[in-house]
Amino acid sequence: MDHMTPDEFRQAGYRMIDWVASYLERLEEFPVLSSVQPGEIRAQLPPSPPLEGEPFEAVLSDLDEIVLPGITHWQSPNFFAFFPANASGPAILGELASAGLGVQGMLWATSPAATELETHVLDWLAEMTGLPDRFRSDGDGGGVIQDSASSATLVAMLAARERSTDGRANRTGITSRLVAYTSTQGHSSVEKAVRIAGLGSDQLRLVPVDETYAMRPDALEARIRADRERGEVPSIVVATVGTTSSTAIDPLGPIADICHRYGLWLHVDAAYAGTAAVCPEMRWILDGLEGADSYCFNPHKWMLTNFDCDAFYVADRAHLIETLSILPEYLRNQATESGTVIDYRDWQIPLGRRFRALKLWFVIRHYGVEGIRAHVRRHIGLADRFADHVDAHPEFELAAPHPFGLVCFRHVDGDEMNRRILERVNASGRLYLTHTVLDDRVTLRLAIGSPATTEHHVDRAWELISGG
Amino acid sequence: MDHMTPDEFRQAGYRMIDWVASYLERLEEFPVLSSVQPGEIRAQLPPSPPLEGEPFEAVLSDLDEIVLPGITHWQSPNFFAFFPANASGPAILGELASAGLGVQGMLWATSPAATELETHVLDWLAEMTGLPDRFRSDGDGGGVIQDSASSATLVAMLAARERSTDGRANRTGITSRLVAYTSTQGHSSVEKAVRIAGLGSDQLRLVPVDETYAMRPDALEARIRADRERGEVPSIVVATVGTTSSTAIDPLGPIADICHRYGLWLHVDAAYAGTAAVCPEMRWILDGLEGADSYCFNPHKWMLTNFDCDAFYVADRAHLIETLSILPEYLRNQATESGTVIDYRDWQIPLGRRFRALKLWFVIRHYGVEGIRAHVRRHIGLADRFADHVDAHPEFELAAPHPFGLVCFRHVDGDEMNRRILERVNASGRLYLTHTVLDDRVTLRLAIGSPATTEHHVDRAWELISGG
Repeated sequence: MDHMTPDEFRQAGYRMIDWVASYLERLEEFPVLSSVQPGEIRAQLPPSPPLEGEPFEAVLSDLDEIVLPGITHWQSPNFFAFFPANASGPAILGELASAGLGVQGMLWATSPAATELETHVLDWLAEMTGLPDRFRSDGDGGGVIQDSASSATLVAMLAARERSTDGRANRTGITSRLVAYTSTQGHSSVEKAVRIAGLGSDQLRLVPVDETYAMRPDALEARIRADRERGEVPSIVVATVGTTSSTAIDPLGPIADICHRYGLWLHVDAAYAGTAAVCPEMRWILDGLEGADSYCFNPHKWMLTNFDCDAFYVADRAHLIETLSILPEYLRNQATESGTVIDYRDWQIPLGRRFRALKLWFVIRHYGVEGIRAHVRRHIGLADRFADHVDAHPEFELAAPHPFGLVCFRHVDGDEMNRRILERVNASGRLYLTHTVLDDRVTLRLAIGSPATTEHHVDRAWELISGG
Repeated sequence: MDHMTPDEFRQAGYRMIDWVASYLERLEEFPVLSSVQPGEIRAQLPPSPPLEGEPFEAVLSDLDEIVLPGITHWQSPNFFAFFPANASGPAILGELASAGLGVQGMLWATSPAATELETHVLDWLAEMTGLPDRFRSDGDGGGVIQDSASSATLVAMLAARERSTDGRANRTGITSRLVAYTSTQGHSSVEKAVRIAGLGSDQLRLVPVDETYAMRPDALEARIRADRERGEVPSIVVATVGTTSSTAIDPLGPIADICHRYGLWLHVDAAYAGTAAVCPEMRWILDGLEGADSYCFNPHKWMLTNFDCDAFYVADRAHLIETLSILPEYLRNQATESGTVIDYRDWQIPLGRRFRALKLWFVIRHYGVEGIRAHVRRHIGLADRFADHVDAHPEFELAAPHPFGLVCFRHVDGDEMNRRILERVNASGRLYLTHTVLDDRVTLRLAIGSPATTEHHVDRAWELISGG
């Protein structure tokens, strides 16, 4: 057995830092979408693990030879697929600091700084993005880092389930027919959550949308009334600010009014778009949020913080904790029993948790609020630029509004043509786009999100797409 | 806005590596358990985020001044609390590589190497720890990295729920009275999972244990029969290899026989102890595992790989995927539709996932199988050494068998005395212990797990504990 000494760690660490820096320098040299065939990576790996340890150099070399060809380059300036999962220098180093400390933040006592920095930085984020005061930790609310918006939706649904059953479901299981609502454009994680939480996907209502793909409050109310009349128990609405297909924005104010009138939990999922609210001129996207019970957005999508980092807020933290807390003997400690501290294990599905607030703290301090605003504004401007290209071309059309960094568009010649364009540009290795379906029509999505993307990349993407 | 250039990243990165190396060198200088008061860390942080970016040096300096006093040092050789969450140089650098690449491994297509390396390294782990072939990916099974054993238990319970309802629960919700079983010593995450999955904690049966705190198969069978007679539907048994309180080992063979006879899913949670099976002489702890449907252990506990890294295996991956898969249009792609690849999003609760296999690969290659064996054997030897100290002292007694790195013991003068010892040693800052309750008696737990712990630290711990 051969633990690295601190000096060996230093030497290997410098090499690893150099490798990452060099990777970031070479980003544009690689095909954006990996072109390996299924099984091609595994075929290069030894069938059995090494019996004796190997030098660090051998691992680094395999990283170049074996791993890199199988990477789809999410940080490339030519990555326009899905939503971004952007990272940054300070985020990477914050993750390194967290791994170096190697602490478990499940309880306040197991590293008070991990809990307190998280609570604090999430209050910072609330201030930066203009969230209603009720989500701040100095009132009854508070924020926590979840791994993903999927988990945030699940946690919100569990809290809603308990509220709708007067705290019985945790004990008795699901005995009434609880109902969840999201729009036809809601994320697939809502369906996953109704399955996991035991409601069943038959109990999910997909509410129709208007011409901007936003949820229609009148349709929501009609569904809730119909369900109540049938003896079902409407429990939660998951509204979306920035849907995955086209960044549509559900009208939070009217939806919140309906939730209050009928006693439903309102969870607002702004996974991608929430970062935009760091710009005062974009705060309108959260109008009506003061009526929500929970909210989340993902700094790991558009706020330069590497996965995983979903910022999840509740207005009533006591209810969340009652929903998720279990205290076995081996976790009892004085701080917990004093009631004066937050134990974040009671805010999430897993028990353990690493010190994820560090990377967010590094990012906010490195860029400052103005730096993050400039980053968001630049991407919105690049999306406008791309949309102008589409608009000016007789054979292409915009498919939806584009308030953020995503442009939905299509060739006028229909689905087959759009599928061909997608295959052609992705096979070129020069960029990576994905698609969706809007109004039953195949629609191309260009999502701008890499810190390195410039006018040059956007113009070149348009040339490639339109130049077929 | 000021992104770090690759050169700025290099310079800041070297500083961060130095900081981690220096932290590891200074580990023993800090009080193991942080002694800050609630709110003390937050009080030192500015109430609002900085408007303009700050130099990296300022962040590094706050890491020393503000964060470190609020850290409980999980990597300290004097950390004996809970179970270990040990890390290592190669694991930290693997995490850095993963953050630097910044890829999302939700689909095979979004980085084939992230998926294939994970499948491959989990087959390596299966070989290293002697798992039955049915858990390997070359048959019908396969492994995946979950964030924690809590999530593994939840995912297993969801798969069991579907099997017990012929695949209906996901759609209709829970309509029959499903029952879950674990021993009175099972982990709290089992109760959390029955709540989340909608069974309800009333539907969890805590099966009595024998004098070694292991589940009694006769008692399990009696409970299952009684439940069936009442019209309930026994669905899953969560057996434990290495319980949290005292590392008791449930008898897997007899439990598996019962599960087969009555049609229950058997999940085996070896979160802490599973690493020991890397040593051939410890493989007996998994006797009977060939009858299980799923299994997990945490390399992030005892296998030198920093959190999060739970290795979760199923014997029938098709069933797991059917349970968790949802395919919205925006995730459709050729590779997925070809059916020839693994999309790990369908093996877990969240959609997104980072490239966690890298750190495990770095660890296995750095240490080799023999290096990890030596690490485990050393800790088991140190636990024996500590147990000998306890045994030789007239006022202390061993409270349970100690097959791994955990020793459960107590002072013969009863609960108050043991609580006083715990408070005294933890307040000293020289070590950190936690407690449990066994047979209604307060019991001290000394868990050896830091790579840096030696005979010296164990002997000194004993002096401090016994020398009151």
